[in-house]
Amino acid sequence: MNDTPAPFTEQDYAARMTRAVRAAAEAGLAGLLVTPGPDMVWLCGHRPTAVTQRLTLLVLIPGSEPRLLVPALERPDTEAAPGAGAVRISDWSDGQDPYAAATGLLLPNGRYGVSDTTWALHLLGLQEALPLTTYRPLNVVLPLLRAVKDEHEVARLAAAGAAADAGYEELLTVRFTGRSETDVAADLARLLHEHGHAQVDFPTVASGPNSANPHHETGARIITHGDTVVLALSGLKDGYGSVLARTVHVGEPTENERTAHDLVRTAQQAAFEAVAPGVPCQDIDRRARRVVSDAELGGTYVADRTGHGVGIATDERPYLTEGEETLLLPGMCFSIGPGVCLPGRFGMRIADVVTCTEEGARRLNSADQGMAIVE
Amino acid sequence: MNDTPAPFTEQDYAARMTRAVRAAAEAGLAGLLVTPGPDMVWLCGHRPTAVTQRLTLLVLIPGSEPRLLVPALERPDTEAAPGAGAVRISDWSDGQDPYAAATGLLLPNGRYGVSDTTWALHLLGLQEALPLTTYRPLNVVLPLLRAVKDEHEVARLAAAGAAADAGYEELLTVRFTGRSETDVAADLARLLHEHGHAQVDFPTVASGPNSANPHHETGARIITHGDTVVLALSGLKDGYGSVLARTVHVGEPTENERTAHDLVRTAQQAAFEAVAPGVPCQDIDRRARRVVSDAELGGTYVADRTGHGVGIATDERPYLTEGEETLLLPGMCFSIGPGVCLPGRFGMRIADVVTCTEEGARRLNSADQGMAIVE
Repeated sequence: MNDTPAPFTEQDYAARMTRAVRAAAEAGLAGLLVTPGPDMVWLCGHRPTAVTQRLTLLVLIPGSEPRLLVPALERPDTEAAPGAGAVRISDWSDGQDPYAAATGLLLPNGRYGVSDTTWALHLLGLQEALPLTTYRPLNVVLPLLRAVKDEHEVARLAAAGAAADAGYEELLTVRFTGRSETDVAADLARLLHEHGHAQVDFPTVASGPNSANPHHETGARIITHGDTVVLALSGLKDGYGSVLARTVHVGEPTENERTAHDLVRTAQQAAFEAVAPGVPCQDIDRRARRVVSDAELGGTYVADRTGHGVGIATDERPYLTEGEETLLLPGMCFSIGPGVCLPGRFGMRIADVVTCTEEGARRLNSADQGMAIVE
Repeated sequence: MNDTPAPFTEQDYAARMTRAVRAAAEAGLAGLLVTPGPDMVWLCGHRPTAVTQRLTLLVLIPGSEPRLLVPALERPDTEAAPGAGAVRISDWSDGQDPYAAATGLLLPNGRYGVSDTTWALHLLGLQEALPLTTYRPLNVVLPLLRAVKDEHEVARLAAAGAAADAGYEELLTVRFTGRSETDVAADLARLLHEHGHAQVDFPTVASGPNSANPHHETGARIITHGDTVVLALSGLKDGYGSVLARTVHVGEPTENERTAHDLVRTAQQAAFEAVAPGVPCQDIDRRARRVVSDAELGGTYVADRTGHGVGIATDERPYLTEGEETLLLPGMCFSIGPGVCLPGRFGMRIADVVTCTEEGARRLNSADQGMAIVE
């Protein structure tokens, strides 16, 4: 299961930049200024080895070809980026003023969307070089820039999901009883690496009463017979994210535990079935919460958000939460991860990544949702 | 050698903030605005667990007490920071406008130094909330903010240096012949961790002809008898940096190799002896280079910079390089690491961290500089 998806093509990047430019124009912006980070990787495939005081700037202006200004030192790496063919690269050398170099690429009185994380050093440099320009944070004006995934992105998310499923399924064969949460989490991290994840966030393993704490940090508690154990993972494979949560039990669960687990599974399924183009994100959250509150089990709903977008970041827009009125679109990919906790007793969670299609949701995880019995 | 230096006190942080405010006033600034990063850690000891879109802002204004504005969620962590007693903490909650909260702490028409790495999101928020304020990048207006270390900082750098020395000395007993550069580097990284380093940059191990490449990345080359091997490390122990480079030889070196190594050692010593308060940084660089060029060995000088500041970052101001006219002051701590390379043949480097005192330089490393023979 170490299949590497096909690489993104120049056309993939060109299409993303075209979409971004169109969105910028619709938002009344003269263009987008993007510095190193996830947006730059997504738009043109360039990921500098380090983010430094040297200016690297992608300039997207409606009606002009995409431009990428880089430090001369960084040019060879930039030219090797998978989207390099879709942008015109220029460079500046140490001793030159990078902001003066940037002015040639910008309209002198434009209103630009700029990456939220752009360093003040660079923004101040641009403002000084072009005093009539104005700026708005990119994720404030275009929060959904990366939210709709193309088919190659969905394929990568599916591959990351399959790897997460495989890692989880292998974990079910390891010993839980008598070992610490940290030991089991290290096993899960290792399995995800073996299944092709380049980045693994240290997994959550919440056992026994810890499972009832939605903010539990994996720790030294020794897992014992009779424990409910919440397992939650996230990471990146081939640049795209996996998010998965399952709840297992050491030995046979009690009737109460079975009832709670069935309820979470029902809530996850109800939220899944509510996904369709045009549905507001907050409705998915409400649907899952209603299942839990209607059951009058006495437990509390686990999460602030039933889910969140997944792409080149493991947590991005859109958010499935109250107040998020964004309408779902085909190609959006996000987690659905409801849970309940009965404080002091136990908690349960089930999370999958799904993609919205014209026909409704499709799961990108296939690991069995049943409460697996482990030893 | 896992001694933990005494913790910094409220008085240490208060003294740093007082110095910073005085420097700001001398630079004609209304104050300093510092967001999470090394400067915030240095000034008030606060290091948020993650840098996010939520505003965390230290405000230092001459004549006012230091203020720290944090997200309400972050307040408990902030109050536990070692310098918390030296600042007045206020908070803002989700749903509130953090920039409106910040306006109460700022003069509405002030000119501020702001952290270089402050997110554009935050700078734009401040500019919008207070349209008459102006901003300059902090490290442009006050590049030497952290350059002079107090005695407790020097003690930490000395402890980091002693740990680096001990790690290096233990490495001399491991086998080099027949193992890869990567294997030896992993040994060195492990030894540094064992000697109390919390962060270790993966060490440079440059063997045989690779030693002649000053930009060599540690790789799969198998080390053999007769190789010159450059070892260079950096990392952090108890929050302060270590930098060390030594050159070893697998078996007996040739006469030419001995001559080159003696030359580098002489250059390092000459640069060391040139350190004194009031000497321009570039003079230290020139002194080391002159030793190498006068020798007419045919080799080229290794580094762009003979050295660089070391503190809570392993590479910071001041730089010992041509064009850096900053005058050395007592308490400045920096590396001195000259080297030569004879392309295609071999290269040599020796680097220590030193501190400038009223009486000249004092080494913070004591590992023998001689070319150790390894097996």
